Amino acid sequence: MVRVGILGVGTVGSSVARILQENGDILEARTGKKIVPVVGAVRDMGRSRDVDIRLTDNPDEVVDDPEIDIVVELMGGVEEPYRVVRKALENGKAVVTANKALLAYHRYELQEIAGETPLYYEASVAGGIPIIGALRNGLSANHIESITGIMNGTCNYMLTRMIKDGVAYDDVLAEAQRLGYAEADPTFDVGGYDAAHKLLILGSIAYGIDAKPEDIIIEGIEEITQTDVEFAREFGYEIKLLGIAKKSGNGVEMRVHSALIPAESMIAKVDGVMNAVSVRGDRVGETLFYGPGAGGDATASAVVADIVEIVRGNSGPMLGYKKSLESASRLLSAEEVTSQYYLKLKVIDEPGVLAAVSSTLGEFGISIESMLQKPSVDADRVKLLFTTHICSEKRMKDAVEAIGRLDVVDENITMIRIEK
Amino acid sequence: MVRVGILGVGTVGSSVARILQENGDILEARTGKKIVPVVGAVRDMGRSRDVDIRLTDNPDEVVDDPEIDIVVELMGGVEEPYRVVRKALENGKAVVTANKALLAYHRYELQEIAGETPLYYEASVAGGIPIIGALRNGLSANHIESITGIMNGTCNYMLTRMIKDGVAYDDVLAEAQRLGYAEADPTFDVGGYDAAHKLLILGSIAYGIDAKPEDIIIEGIEEITQTDVEFAREFGYEIKLLGIAKKSGNGVEMRVHSALIPAESMIAKVDGVMNAVSVRGDRVGETLFYGPGAGGDATASAVVADIVEIVRGNSGPMLGYKKSLESASRLLSAEEVTSQYYLKLKVIDEPGVLAAVSSTLGEFGISIESMLQKPSVDADRVKLLFTTHICSEKRMKDAVEAIGRLDVVDENITMIRIEK
Repeated sequence: MVRVGILGVGTVGSSVARILQENGDILEARTGKKIVPVVGAVRDMGRSRDVDIRLTDNPDEVVDDPEIDIVVELMGGVEEPYRVVRKALENGKAVVTANKALLAYHRYELQEIAGETPLYYEASVAGGIPIIGALRNGLSANHIESITGIMNGTCNYMLTRMIKDGVAYDDVLAEAQRLGYAEADPTFDVGGYDAAHKLLILGSIAYGIDAKPEDIIIEGIEEITQTDVEFAREFGYEIKLLGIAKKSGNGVEMRVHSALIPAESMIAKVDGVMNAVSVRGDRVGETLFYGPGAGGDATASAVVADIVEIVRGNSGPMLGYKKSLESASRLLSAEEVTSQYYLKLKVIDEPGVLAAVSSTLGEFGISIESMLQKPSVDADRVKLLFTTHICSEKRMKDAVEAIGRLDVVDENITMIRIEK
Repeated sequence: MVRVGILGVGTVGSSVARILQENGDILEARTGKKIVPVVGAVRDMGRSRDVDIRLTDNPDEVVDDPEIDIVVELMGGVEEPYRVVRKALENGKAVVTANKALLAYHRYELQEIAGETPLYYEASVAGGIPIIGALRNGLSANHIESITGIMNGTCNYMLTRMIKDGVAYDDVLAEAQRLGYAEADPTFDVGGYDAAHKLLILGSIAYGIDAKPEDIIIEGIEEITQTDVEFAREFGYEIKLLGIAKKSGNGVEMRVHSALIPAESMIAKVDGVMNAVSVRGDRVGETLFYGPGAGGDATASAVVADIVEIVRGNSGPMLGYKKSLESASRLLSAEEVTSQYYLKLKVIDEPGVLAAVSSTLGEFGISIESMLQKPSVDADRVKLLFTTHICSEKRMKDAVEAIGRLDVVDENITMIRIEK
C-alpha cells in the first residue's frame, strides 16, 4: 500500500483524493499497488470539503509523518511551499507538485535537494496535457528548435471571443470574470505572468536554461483593441497569447506576449479555454499537444499520473538532464530577440505623413512587409497599420520611439509581434 | 557506454544511427551515458547505406552478441521479427521496436516473454507522436472513454485533397503514389489495415483488450466519392479515416473506417499527411496529440526516445498493466457497435420512392436525422442522401440490405458512419 498526503485540499486537492479513491481499480491494475490518500492539510479546518480523508491544519504533520510515502503539494504561494517541499524531500518522501510559481523560482534548488528522490510536476504546466512527459521523455531524442504554447485559458478564451464574435476587451473580461475564468484581479492571467511561469519550466527541460520571470519578456493581452482584431481577420491571422522558447543561433529566446499567427497553423485553431503546446524538434518536426489547461479534475489527472509514475518506480532527472550540456544555451536578452512586427499608429490626416513614418522605419533598417490605412473615428486622424520583415527588438523599439516623436503621430503606438 | 544493435537499416534504421551519433551531446546529457550504435543487420549487404556502423546480414549475430545492450527491431514482417525479438529478450537484452504488425499479433506473448526486461514500442503508433507514453503514463489516472485517431498519413493526405481541392479518388491516389505517400499496392494503407494494427496496440493500453486484426471492423477509404465529399462540405463535416476505441456500457468498440466528423472538432482540423490521436479520459476530458505519423526521422525520434527511457533505467509494464483489471472490458462484436450513419442511394426518379425507402428504415426502427435529394447525371435516376440517428450496426446493415432489395433502388448503397 502506498500512502499519500495532500497539502492543500481545494478544488484540485479534493479531486486528487477522489480520483485515487474512485479510480482505484485502474490505478491498482496499472501500478500493482493500492494507492490511498490518508491525510490532507488545509488552512481553514472550519470549511466543509467534499472529500473523505483525515484533515489537519498543520502541513508539517504531513511531511513529518513516517507513514506517508508521497506528498502532493497544492498549497499555492512560493516560499511556504518551498519550505515544506524541501522538508518532505529531506524526509525522503517523493513529492508531486502542481505549483508553477514555486518551480518558476526554485526548480533548480529543488532538483538539487531531491537528488534521486522523485519530484514530479506534470500538472504545473498546461493542466491535463502531459507536456512535461512529452518533452522529458517522448521527444528526448531531439534538439528542441522551438516551443510555442497557448498556456493560459483565460487569455485564450478572451481572445477567441474578441476575434470570433467581435466582443470588446472590457466586455469579454467582465464575461470571463462572471464565468469564473478570470479572477477579480485578472493581472496574473491577462498580464502574461501565469504563462511565463509555465514557459520557464518548459525552457529548463528543453534547453537547461535557469531563468526567473524577471529575466524574460512578459507582456499580456491588455493592449489588444478592435482595430487589431479587424486587421488580424482581414489578413488571415489569429491573435494568441503565446509563450515562446526558441533556439536562435547559440542562444535561446524566451518570451510571453500576444502575437499574430497565421490562421491556418494548427496552434491558431486552438479556441476558448483550451491550451496547446507546439514543439518543434530537429528530428521529429512539428508536434502539438492539446487539452484542458485548468480545472480541478484535469489538473488532478496530471497529479495522479505523476503518483503512478512514482509508484511504478520510475524517476529520471527532475528537469530532464543527468548532467549538464557541454555547450549550454545562453538566454538572449530582451533586446536581442528578433521578430516580425505589426505596428498601429494614429496619425494626422495630411500629405507627407506616410512618407515621414516609413522613412523613419527605413532609417532604422526596418523594411515594411505590408501597409494598410484605415479611416478613424476622429475627423482629422487616420490609422496606419504596418507589418514589417524580421528585425531585432532593440531596433524596433528605437524606431517606435523615434516615430512617436514625430509631430504628426500620436504617441500611443501599438506593437504586436508576428510569429510564423 | 550503452551499445545498440539495429535490425533493419533502411530509412528509419539509418536515421536512428545518425540521431545517436549526431545528437550524442543532448542524449548523453539527458541519460548521463554515451549511447553508441555499433552494428546493423541488413538483408542486402550490397546496397550502399548512409550510415557509419558495422553491418552484418545475420540478425542472430546481433541478438546473440554479449556486447549489445539494446536491440532495435525495424525489420518489418511478423514471424521473423517475432523470433528474433523473442531471442533478444531471452538473452536479457532490452528491445525497442517500431513494428506495429508484430505487436498487432504478438504483443501479449511478447509482454509475457519480456517480464521485467524493457520492451518499448513508441514508434509503432503514429510515428513521432509520443502517444504510447501519453496513454501509458500521462493519462494513467483516467478510465479512458474513447480514443479517436487519424493514424494513417496516406489516407489523410488523400481525403484532405479530395475535400479541400475537389480532386477525385483515382487522381489523388496516383498523386500520392508519385509523391511516395502511397505504395504501388496501396491496400494496406487505403484499406485501413495499417491504422487497425495501431489501434489494437492503443486498445491494449487503454482497455487491456487482447484482440487481433480479424476481430474488429476494418474498412478503408476506397468507397468515398465526390458526392460524399460534396455532402460533407455542405453539411459542415470533414471525412477522415478514423481508428476508434470506445467504451460502450461494459464493452469496448474497436473499429477502423472512414467517418464524417464535424468540421469544427479539433481532430477534423488535422490535414495532409499529419497524424493525430484524440483521447478522452473520465477525469482529464479531451486531449489531442498531433504530429508526423511517418518518415524516417520522425519515427527514429520515437525509437531513440525509447532508448533514452531504457538507459535512464525506467521500465514499467509493457502494455501499461502490472496486473489485470478486475472487471476487464469485453470487445463488442461488429454487430453490437452503434453509430449514426450517412446513406447514399441511387433511386429511380418517380413518385413514392422516398416514401418506400424511409418506411423501410422505419421498419427497422431507424429514424432519419436529415435528407437531401440530388439530381443525378443519369436522366431517370436521382441520389438520395440520408443521415440517421444512432442505431446498431446490425440493424443498419439489415435495413441497407432490405432497401437494396427494393425495385426502385440501385443495389450499390454507400454507408458512412458519422462520429460526433
